[in-house]
Amino acid sequence: MKKKLIIINGPNLNLQGRREVGVYGTDTFENLLYALRRQYPDVEIDYYQSNVEGELINKLQEVGFASDGIILNAGGYSHTSVSIRDAVVAITSPVVEVHISNIYAREEFRHNSLLSAVCKGSICGFGLDSYRLAVEALACDR
Amino acid sequence: MKKKLIIINGPNLNLQGRREVGVYGTDTFENLLYALRRQYPDVEIDYYQSNVEGELINKLQEVGFASDGIILNAGGYSHTSVSIRDAVVAITSPVVEVHISNIYAREEFRHNSLLSAVCKGSICGFGLDSYRLAVEALACDR
Amino acid sequence: MKKKLIIINGPNLNLQGRREVGVYGTDTFENLLYALRRQYPDVEIDYYQSNVEGELINKLQEVGFASDGIILNAGGYSHTSVSIRDAVVAITSPVVEVHISNIYAREEFRHNSLLSAVCKGSICGFGLDSYRLAVEALACDR
Amino acid sequence: MKKKLIIINGPNLNLQGRREVGVYGTDTFENLLYALRRQYPDVEIDYYQSNVEGELINKLQEVGFASDGIILNAGGYSHTSVSIRDAVVAITSPVVEVHISNIYAREEFRHNSLLSAVCKGSICGFGLDSYRLAVEALACDR
Amino acid sequence: MKKKLIIINGPNLNLQGRREVGVYGTDTFENLLYALRRQYPDVEIDYYQSNVEGELINKLQEVGFASDGIILNAGGYSHTSVSIRDAVVAITSPVVEVHISNIYAREEFRHNSLLSAVCKGSICGFGLDSYRLAVEALACDR
Amino acid sequence: MKKKLIIINGPNLNLQGRREVGVYGTDTFENLLYALRRQYPDVEIDYYQSNVEGELINKLQEVGFASDGIILNAGGYSHTSVSIRDAVVAITSPVVEVHISNIYAREEFRHNSLLSAVCKGSICGFGLDSYRLAVEALACDR
Amino acid sequence: MKKKLIIINGPNLNLQGRREVGVYGTDTFENLLYALRRQYPDVEIDYYQSNVEGELINKLQEVGFASDGIILNAGGYSHTSVSIRDAVVAITSPVVEVHISNIYAREEFRHNSLLSAVCKGSICGFGLDSYRLAVEALACDR
Amino acid sequence: MKKKLIIINGPNLNLQGRREVGVYGTDTFENLLYALRRQYPDVEIDYYQSNVEGELINKLQEVGFASDGIILNAGGYSHTSVSIRDAVVAITSPVVEVHISNIYAREEFRHNSLLSAVCKGSICGFGLDSYRLAVEALACDR
Amino acid sequence: MKKKLIIINGPNLNLQGRREVGVYGTDTFENLLYALRRQYPDVEIDYYQSNVEGELINKLQEVGFASDGIILNAGGYSHTSVSIRDAVVAITSPVVEVHISNIYAREEFRHNSLLSAVCKGSICGFGLDSYRLAVEALACDR
Amino acid sequence: MKKKLIIINGPNLNLQGRREVGVYGTDTFENLLYALRRQYPDVEIDYYQSNVEGELINKLQEVGFASDGIILNAGGYSHTSVSIRDAVVAITSPVVEVHISNIYAREEFRHNSLLSAVCKGSICGFGLDSYRLAVEALACDR
Amino acid sequence: MKKKLIIINGPNLNLQGRREVGVYGTDTFENLLYALRRQYPDVEIDYYQSNVEGELINKLQEVGFASDGIILNAGGYSHTSVSIRDAVVAITSPVVEVHISNIYAREEFRHNSLLSAVCKGSICGFGLDSYRLAVEALACDR
Amino acid sequence: MKKKLIIINGPNLNLQGRREVGVYGTDTFENLLYALRRQYPDVEIDYYQSNVEGELINKLQEVGFASDGIILNAGGYSHTSVSIRDAVVAITSPVVEVHISNIYAREEFRHNSLLSAVCKGSICGFGLDSYRLAVEALACDR
Repeated sequence: MKKKLIIINGPNLNLQGRREVGVYGTDTFENLLYALRRQYPDVEIDYYQSNVEGELINKLQEVGFASDGIILNAGGYSHTSVSIRDAVVAITSPVVEVHISNIYAREEFRHNSLLSAVCKGSICGFGLDSYRLAVEALACDR
Repeated sequence: MKKKLIIINGPNLNLQGRREVGVYGTDTFENLLYALRRQYPDVEIDYYQSNVEGELINKLQEVGFASDGIILNAGGYSHTSVSIRDAVVAITSPVVEVHISNIYAREEFRHNSLLSAVCKGSICGFGLDSYRLAVEALACDR
Repeated sequence: MKKKLIIINGPNLNLQGRREVGVYGTDTFENLLYALRRQYPDVEIDYYQSNVEGELINKLQEVGFASDGIILNAGGYSHTSVSIRDAVVAITSPVVEVHISNIYAREEFRHNSLLSAVCKGSICGFGLDSYRLAVEALACDR
Repeated sequence: MKKKLIIINGPNLNLQGRREVGVYGTDTFENLLYALRRQYPDVEIDYYQSNVEGELINKLQEVGFASDGIILNAGGYSHTSVSIRDAVVAITSPVVEVHISNIYAREEFRHNSLLSAVCKGSICGFGLDSYRLAVEALACDR
Repeated sequence: MKKKLIIINGPNLNLQGRREVGVYGTDTFENLLYALRRQYPDVEIDYYQSNVEGELINKLQEVGFASDGIILNAGGYSHTSVSIRDAVVAITSPVVEVHISNIYAREEFRHNSLLSAVCKGSICGFGLDSYRLAVEALACDR
Repeated sequence: MKKKLIIINGPNLNLQGRREVGVYGTDTFENLLYALRRQYPDVEIDYYQSNVEGELINKLQEVGFASDGIILNAGGYSHTSVSIRDAVVAITSPVVEVHISNIYAREEFRHNSLLSAVCKGSICGFGLDSYRLAVEALACDR
Repeated sequence: MKKKLIIINGPNLNLQGRREVGVYGTDTFENLLYALRRQYPDVEIDYYQSNVEGELINKLQEVGFASDGIILNAGGYSHTSVSIRDAVVAITSPVVEVHISNIYAREEFRHNSLLSAVCKGSICGFGLDSYRLAVEALACDR
Repeated sequence: MKKKLIIINGPNLNLQGRREVGVYGTDTFENLLYALRRQYPDVEIDYYQSNVEGELINKLQEVGFASDGIILNAGGYSHTSVSIRDAVVAITSPVVEVHISNIYAREEFRHNSLLSAVCKGSICGFGLDSYRLAVEALACDR
Repeated sequence: MKKKLIIINGPNLNLQGRREVGVYGTDTFENLLYALRRQYPDVEIDYYQSNVEGELINKLQEVGFASDGIILNAGGYSHTSVSIRDAVVAITSPVVEVHISNIYAREEFRHNSLLSAVCKGSICGFGLDSYRLAVEALACDR
Repeated sequence: MKKKLIIINGPNLNLQGRREVGVYGTDTFENLLYALRRQYPDVEIDYYQSNVEGELINKLQEVGFASDGIILNAGGYSHTSVSIRDAVVAITSPVVEVHISNIYAREEFRHNSLLSAVCKGSICGFGLDSYRLAVEALACDR
Repeated sequence: MKKKLIIINGPNLNLQGRREVGVYGTDTFENLLYALRRQYPDVEIDYYQSNVEGELINKLQEVGFASDGIILNAGGYSHTSVSIRDAVVAITSPVVEVHISNIYAREEFRHNSLLSAVCKGSICGFGLDSYRLAVEALACDR
Repeated sequence: MKKKLIIINGPNLNLQGRREVGVYGTDTFENLLYALRRQYPDVEIDYYQSNVEGELINKLQEVGFASDGIILNAGGYSHTSVSIRDAVVAITSPVVEVHISNIYAREEFRHNSLLSAVCKGSICGFGLDSYRLAVEALACDR
């Protein structure tokens, strides 16, 4: 049976490819999803994005008891949201935290993620390739 | 005339009874509301829950000038939301802060609530019974 | 069999009713005790007050293995006493922390109570009514 | 051609004129907008308000590539929102931060705005007149 | 009768136009004053500059009981001078704080101004246009 | 009628004259009291010392509504006792804080006194002469 | 001539053997004293315990000029008492600080002892054996 | 031979009597000096005031090797001036620090004086009477 | 031509498989290397381990100008070594930081890695699988 | 069978007896070892010293699964080495931390030892006698 | 052509040779200048001293566009003056920071110089020889 | 007789001339040593480099009782090594701290050197010329 994964993206990630391209690159999520689905034909990969903190929580609750894995880039909420952290703890699916940029090489307020401690693992700094590594981690997890 | 109270619950409290039961217990809000309405027949007790910070503010503004009392468990937003604090200050109904768990015995970032200073009072650590004590405080307030 | 509770009050609470009435109100503990004993005829409510930190510890040790519940307002010691905290941990009776005023709306050094984390729960900001809520919490605790 | 500006107001600013009038005054945004449009006939001034953090981000993204200037009062989110900051950076229209009250003369957690560093400039403390000064800054910007 | 305003500039602002032009621009105060006086013919605008902290205090005391408004850019002293703050409090004329650059986007020790809390309002980041906005705020203040 | 003052000394001050003479000198309180009573014949000067924090609070409560002035050297409790601070606030007699040594020239934990803010004034560093200056301040207070 | 030592125990140590046995073990001081007196027949070992901070100071002052060594476990006061520290400095007998548990492996507020810096040495973490090592250190001290 | 003392006042103290009278009172230094010279006929009392930090240093250096005592109220510089502190250390006359108001009951940045540690003693909170107490301390110093 | 990668392991990682198995698991690096070389036949994977900080720097310098990628788990040095950070910056090969455990869910001093900011990316929390993901990131890096 | 203990000394302890004799005394480890071996004939006491952090880790790993006890004075590394701490946790022999001087009475950066929390116990301040007490603790440990 | 250097000394350095000779030595600047001018006949060495922060800024501005090098000892202002820092940045001549004493071995507030980061280099701790080394650095700079 | 000096370089300084040339320049130590030996024919200048913290301590101990002066650039260990600091204190030769770059103008963790306080003096920011100035300081020291 196919594994079911979902990528959940937080605020401003809908602009990926046309904002701060020096930091985030020009690749888009459309391209990424297309490539991932080809590379991992045995994995079903869903996608969700919202700028609203509470809608991310809604989605985590909705998929978080049945999904085989959640790839979460909570964007700016990573550094401020106790509530998303609580949602990650509340659900049962494994969550992998990803960041496109190397958050540790940026402003100090980005060095601390409230989510890291409650996720299965964290991957950051590889551009959009961070997402592929997360799929790899969840799809091939023994 | 009946006093009108409302319980406003924040993020993840819709999962009460099936998340982290070691911390939050297995009781549900359905049961709680049923019991409270029986125990306090002279009090009208409304209920609202949202995972979205701004919707909680909307609700506080909507009921906050007419309600006889608001019982607010803002969940994870308690520790991060200047905006909900501002809403509590902006309205005129008395607000009582409640927490199910003893937030002072948990992670350090839960020890500080931005809301406590602007609420009438705070009650925490008694499980769902915290809500009953808040009703008691507001219903019997002389 | 009657439940046996005790209210233990710390420093300066013997002046209740005639000190800083803007903060603490003009009610006295005599009135409070009278009212509580009438409202809860099935509960035996003892009372103890001392300005001496160590005597509060003595009393906690003395009653803390047999009492059905302790209502503790350690006053100024709440914010500085590791030793009272250790006493609360050492005993077996449930302890509820109360404060008359909303300590979170006062000076910063009052925002942090060393006792909260080791008590069953905390109630603050309801004036002397905080004590009644604590009795309610302990007497009706299921 | 007319310059197009937009005022984006965050949480609780919909209550302007009837909340904490000692701090915020009794003027309303309706009056302000009417006066501004008369005083600056050559400038088109739109208006948007939401209590939801993510909706503010949505609006910033929607107008932020075509508007000639954004006047942003993010209210309580100013002090906590990395995500709105990211949105301001992501867009290309100039953003001016305004505050009605002098945030530096209030609680310490209001002294630090995450948005200031990424806005073109900041104006605070002039009551609703802060908005007019921002229009002045954007409309007459050489 | 003409309103009387004064611009008081602190240390190093006498070099405006030839120091760190990337940060402060190449405009001079001579040009600014000429333009302001033309734009606001009904306002009398004086000018004073000193590198000496105490002389700024002297000037504030001298004009601070009769002037209709003071536009103060205390430069580096903004971040360190309790004494200038005390002077601003001591006098009765309204004081508006201005900064040419966006101080929040520079070194951390520039993020905190001791003067902001005691001024009527603050304007920063608009280059020399910050001064014009301050005149606007004081001249048209209702 | 004679003014009635009392000197209240805290922990370890009973050893004055034979402990750390490099810091505190060799004078004793017996000598000091003898000298003060001769120099101020119109003032009645009582004396109390205890090593117990709560007994100092008891004494402050006992004399604090009738005494014309209290000279308080709370010793080590100055830096840690919220409860003595609360007692000083609760009573109505003016309290002057004294220290024999210059506490600001000693260990960092002695630089901050919780009592200073709630006393009428503070005098420190003049050896036992600090007490005479406090009598002077209270006796001749207009 | 026999050396005279004294063990001075602070708050809650009178409960040793029946409180938090996972942390402090089940041994009692009666057993310890019996064993120590047998093992060190040439040493006289006194014992004192109080929950009152000031009484510990009284005892330190009483024995601190004649005793050959003081073994001090100030319990929770170790982390908060400037006054006991002052007493240790004021007296002339050598003082050894002991703790039953490894205070560095417990809550952060237990990591810092105000007494360590003024004691001859510190021993912690060996259970009741910490006391025997302290006797060993003082009895065999060359 | 007459003792020679000097009062050195820092920034804004030249406004004494007409600034923030709620904090500093309405007495003037003219009155104070007149009264002091009458009360202490055997003491010569000079007076100096400047708003300029460096001029205060100049004066301290000028009188600081011959004066019998300096009464220093450095105003706002007390909290920021390493250089005045260095001057106090460099000279040989005893310096007494005074403050009119109780600096510990005001803003946090006023709680710490860089000068206290290097002065002979500190007196604060007695209004202008603080100066008389300092004269008393220096004139009668044995 | 084959890509050449090297895994560099820091202190205590030579005990992998037999230390703190609850945290680090029971897998050994021998097994990991065997599996990796099978899974990535086109990649040459070297291995180095040392407990000595300076030898890790030596090795980084030795391979850091020719290797196609370095997978660095500096163990405890990650949190303290400015010197290893300097070495990572000095060399030209891309470095990926890995951790076996989720360092953000452990003691606070493990939350901050000095190396993260200067590495290409970071991967942590996946057990030994973290190394495979790093190989994946470096081997398939476009 | 003889118990096997080992003393492991860190950096600069090879200079014991000829460096900073005011702090560390003039005794040498040769004398100490000679005395200890005579006093404890039933205990085998090995000795190791290195200035290299990683070699200390190597030695801890080498002896840490068979030794009956390790007496560790990590010198300056005590305050900075997460890696030695990890080694202590990784091994199974009990480790006792010793310090010759009273580290709490020295510079602030010596007050915090990263090792204390993971050792069985700590002994400090008794000069070289600290080592004898550690032998006593390990040899006679029941 | 001769290089033109200037030594600019800040507050209290005019007392060099007769203040705190244990810290600063007994040499005077007269002697130093005489010796430097003899040792460096090809360099013109000017000298300026002021106790007034703003006059130091005036002098830096006056010489800072033509001088071949400035040797700056800003004394106590080094640790507090954002304004002198701004002046150093504003001018174009290279500035070398010197200190007579080792500021890192003194009080904590002297450990941090605001000027170091914007000077060409810093030299401290060599007594008056620090100035000669600065001349050496500027005169022989290639 | 010739003075004997030694330059001791810490981690990564063996890469000087080919790492981060924007920060450290392209000069090599070979060139520097050649130039220094020519310029100071009466001084014998040895050289040592290691990346291993403990080997630097070994070398300091080896030469530190006979050398006429040590020029120490401990690189990244400057900011973290209590142990090298202890070694500098333990030896008797004067040690001068040098840094090639201006460490105060770089990352915050480089602003604080543990070594500065125990060295004779510090020189930083002059590129490799820092070493020549240190030779100058030690060779010509009177």
